Amino acid sequence: MPTLRLAIAQINPTVGDLEQNSNLIIEYIEKAETLGADVVAFPELAVTGYPPEDLLLKPHFVSDNVSATQKIAESTGQITAIFGFAEPIEGKLYNSAAVANNHKIVNTYQKVHLPNYGVFDEKRYFAEGSNFPVYDLNEVRFGINVCEDIWFPSGPTNIQSNNGSSLIININGSPFSLGKREEREKVLIERSRDNAVFIAYINMVGGQDELVFDGGSLVVAPNGNILMRADQFKENLYIYDLQLPKYQKSTDPEASTRSKNISLTQNKKELKSIPCPTTKTVDPNEEIFQALVLGTRDYVKKCGFSKVLIALSGGIDSSLVAAIAVEALGPENVVGISLPSRFSSSGSKTDAKDLANNLNIKIDSIDIEEIFQAFEESLTNQFNGTKSGVAEENIQSRIRGNLMMALSNKFGFLLLTTGNKSEMAVGYATIYGDMAGGFSVIKDLPKMMVYEICHHINEKYGTDRIPDAILTKPPSAELRSDQKDSDSLPEYEILDAILEKYIEQDLGIEEILKDGFEANMVIQILKLVDLNEYKRRQSAPGIKITSKNFGRDRRMPISNKYRPY
Amino acid sequence: MPTLRLAIAQINPTVGDLEQNSNLIIEYIEKAETLGADVVAFPELAVTGYPPEDLLLKPHFVSDNVSATQKIAESTGQITAIFGFAEPIEGKLYNSAAVANNHKIVNTYQKVHLPNYGVFDEKRYFAEGSNFPVYDLNEVRFGINVCEDIWFPSGPTNIQSNNGSSLIININGSPFSLGKREEREKVLIERSRDNAVFIAYINMVGGQDELVFDGGSLVVAPNGNILMRADQFKENLYIYDLQLPKYQKSTDPEASTRSKNISLTQNKKELKSIPCPTTKTVDPNEEIFQALVLGTRDYVKKCGFSKVLIALSGGIDSSLVAAIAVEALGPENVVGISLPSRFSSSGSKTDAKDLANNLNIKIDSIDIEEIFQAFEESLTNQFNGTKSGVAEENIQSRIRGNLMMALSNKFGFLLLTTGNKSEMAVGYATIYGDMAGGFSVIKDLPKMMVYEICHHINEKYGTDRIPDAILTKPPSAELRSDQKDSDSLPEYEILDAILEKYIEQDLGIEEILKDGFEANMVIQILKLVDLNEYKRRQSAPGIKITSKNFGRDRRMPISNKYRPY
Repeated sequence: MPTLRLAIAQINPTVGDLEQNSNLIIEYIEKAETLGADVVAFPELAVTGYPPEDLLLKPHFVSDNVSATQKIAESTGQITAIFGFAEPIEGKLYNSAAVANNHKIVNTYQKVHLPNYGVFDEKRYFAEGSNFPVYDLNEVRFGINVCEDIWFPSGPTNIQSNNGSSLIININGSPFSLGKREEREKVLIERSRDNAVFIAYINMVGGQDELVFDGGSLVVAPNGNILMRADQFKENLYIYDLQLPKYQKSTDPEASTRSKNISLTQNKKELKSIPCPTTKTVDPNEEIFQALVLGTRDYVKKCGFSKVLIALSGGIDSSLVAAIAVEALGPENVVGISLPSRFSSSGSKTDAKDLANNLNIKIDSIDIEEIFQAFEESLTNQFNGTKSGVAEENIQSRIRGNLMMALSNKFGFLLLTTGNKSEMAVGYATIYGDMAGGFSVIKDLPKMMVYEICHHINEKYGTDRIPDAILTKPPSAELRSDQKDSDSLPEYEILDAILEKYIEQDLGIEEILKDGFEANMVIQILKLVDLNEYKRRQSAPGIKITSKNFGRDRRMPISNKYRPY
Repeated sequence: MPTLRLAIAQINPTVGDLEQNSNLIIEYIEKAETLGADVVAFPELAVTGYPPEDLLLKPHFVSDNVSATQKIAESTGQITAIFGFAEPIEGKLYNSAAVANNHKIVNTYQKVHLPNYGVFDEKRYFAEGSNFPVYDLNEVRFGINVCEDIWFPSGPTNIQSNNGSSLIININGSPFSLGKREEREKVLIERSRDNAVFIAYINMVGGQDELVFDGGSLVVAPNGNILMRADQFKENLYIYDLQLPKYQKSTDPEASTRSKNISLTQNKKELKSIPCPTTKTVDPNEEIFQALVLGTRDYVKKCGFSKVLIALSGGIDSSLVAAIAVEALGPENVVGISLPSRFSSSGSKTDAKDLANNLNIKIDSIDIEEIFQAFEESLTNQFNGTKSGVAEENIQSRIRGNLMMALSNKFGFLLLTTGNKSEMAVGYATIYGDMAGGFSVIKDLPKMMVYEICHHINEKYGTDRIPDAILTKPPSAELRSDQKDSDSLPEYEILDAILEKYIEQDLGIEEILKDGFEANMVIQILKLVDLNEYKRRQSAPGIKITSKNFGRDRRMPISNKYRPY
């Protein structure tokens, strides 16, 4: 059987950075060529980064991306390079794969199935392809398709394998969420078995605003065995030698009319065997941690920052964010600020210091008492005769927001905000206060998951990075005397279970109540979720972890009177 | 010729409020029946409100909307009611029109052309229809289609008129933008002429988050004459008697196979003539003013507020917002707050008071000096040895934001924020400072348009609602001594011209420079626009006025390194 040496370039492009992305692609093409690869495959829209969003509506962006694509094609020699770009054809735009060889673009494939749900908006930009080319390289035939195309049993994979392809190269920009890797592998195993083809699945890696692409590229055999599994969350080149059958003419006359064959020229070379490690999968908590680390690192760097600021309250959320930031950027690039008030317990202050010591980061302290008093005095007339409450609590939180932003503006550090998903859901956060900041690292992590990931980090390091006191004390916003989260919210275990049903599963109240929760409590929670859409709309972006995040995934109206409870 | 009495119910539903919306529809059906109408037509998705966004992903919402639709159908007697709802069929969802008569749903039409560009995301929710029914009522035949369907020359209108319809009833949820009315009328005139049919165009009215539906429903004759034009920005019922030809069997055999005929029963009645006023169109500045007023009124009311707060700086932006709020809610529901600092000119303070007097609203004053000093003292260590700059300026703005939000939280008034589009574009606003607030009234109004609308208001009232001093002084943020906007920005006339080309027209730098602007200045502006995406992402929603607003219309990545200049 002929051998096809495949190089999988699991790269981390940056949205809009056409020059750096094309240089990165050219660099990987050269590496792959040096290693004797016949074919090197890159992710979906590798030239533009994914998702380029409304950059695609700028004609000059599209034409610059075409120039970059041509420049990349010119860099190919013997090797055949396959990479994603945005392809304008007769006034329409396609999400395409370029096939380049011998210094030119030999052919292109246009994505057929365009996802337009969840975080995806591809029908806003792209038209649907309708061609199913196959390619002959020496004695083997293969087909190419893009991401969503492989999810359809009677999609392009089926047509291309009916037309004699023994290998399908599927290029992707598939973002991480919990359980997504298993789901992908299941689909690919099914598709390879059903069509008796090898499938090479190439995914992007890297963070882009709310999304983290987790890599984890794969090679699957026709019997469904996973032959190779690339690392998750890591940019790298993987070489895999495939033993493919010699191409024999298709027996399905219909298939050949739907496909077109393109011949790629290439000389046979002597191949030196290169070992390809098959990575073991990591457990879900480690996946989440790595997604948070990569998402944070890439947001900070791709937005041009190097250092970050975090308000350290001594609570679990800000502690976790600090631990993630240190992993992502190094302790020298993370600065903690403690902002105690008259309501801060002495425990909180020492906990924050202990955390900073454990993480080896600088911590500074600014007392907010004097400023708070100045606010109280200024508002004496207006607040005269009113009862102290949420307004006074929020003033403190917004003083902290103002101080943190002042430091951010003065020194050019990015402020990370520390709210978790449970808080974002019920609005237990102060808009322009603790919600202030450019990136909301654990925004999609329910509170119970926050605890889990903290324990995971401590286990992973074999030492208490996050002090035990922080993990065991009852959560509190400390905005009034002896305040506890549980004064106004149910236990987080119950809260998270209800939120998961309402937000991720979109269940109605009748279905939620079937699980025996107390009706008034459930109604109170759903009301809070619906009421606080306005806060979420003004919140910083954060990393998608669950199957439905606040942001790209869940798009609710603010003026909305649907209250079926 | 037979007469068909058509009632156009240009209503203002609320997204999600299935109960109130169906009661409103039933009320209008009864009104129309009392007036002897044969057919009453409502807007697109009148049952759910438009756009319901991800409410449509909740199965219980869809099923509640179906129940509401059935309840409405039951309320019909002799009259035929046509209204929009979300229709689930075999696991798919359609944007449909219900045709109800004699207490039941007689038939439904599924929208064929689903807009998925600009502010629209219909392909996220809906499948495309493929049926083209026509309806026979007594001796006349008519067809129904939904919004976008009428924009296609060879779309449903063509098929339905080929199948004998002399009238097309087109139901809409078409949002306002400048020039949109003329554009719609042009299309409808063309479509009615090309198909030799009457077209009744029924549009929604009302504000929904960023969008304002402007009504302006129409009846167009087969020769393209506009027979009736409803008011813009006003909920109302309009009656129009159409003289339609008796239906004669279609001569196009193909058309009849693509359509199906539904007969509607109805007894002939004696009709008393009802005059139908044809409204004159209003000029663009008045259209903009009315859109801002309706958008503000509906956001405030649909979100459950009655009163609003505005920080009055004595500048033109906050003055315009106050004038709009007074028109929308009445002077008794608008409270102005003056927040002077050491940098506020005495002119600004008196200008704010004069404005409040002219508008007859309450104004209160809170000096920020003491609080600002408390911040300066608290930051002494951190800021030691640094030069005073943007950080210090932003502290003042955020103190104001904190005070305004404290009043908002304490008294339950909605805080309106006052930035204009030019500022939002270049980031000349403080995030969590003057950007704080629930609704950003003039967010899509370029600065030059702000001036125009102020002059328009003064002319309209025949008196200086907005004091002349405010209209004539040079714009300043007053965050440092003798600051002027023109210190850091070009003149607004030039800035707005460049922004319009870059944002609304999506032109690249080469094309912008063709108009003779100074290259370095253009580069500086484009850089600012690209850099400040993170601020816009956390900004409050505001009313869409131009052809491309920041928000639903323009969806740019934050991490984005495309800088082709």
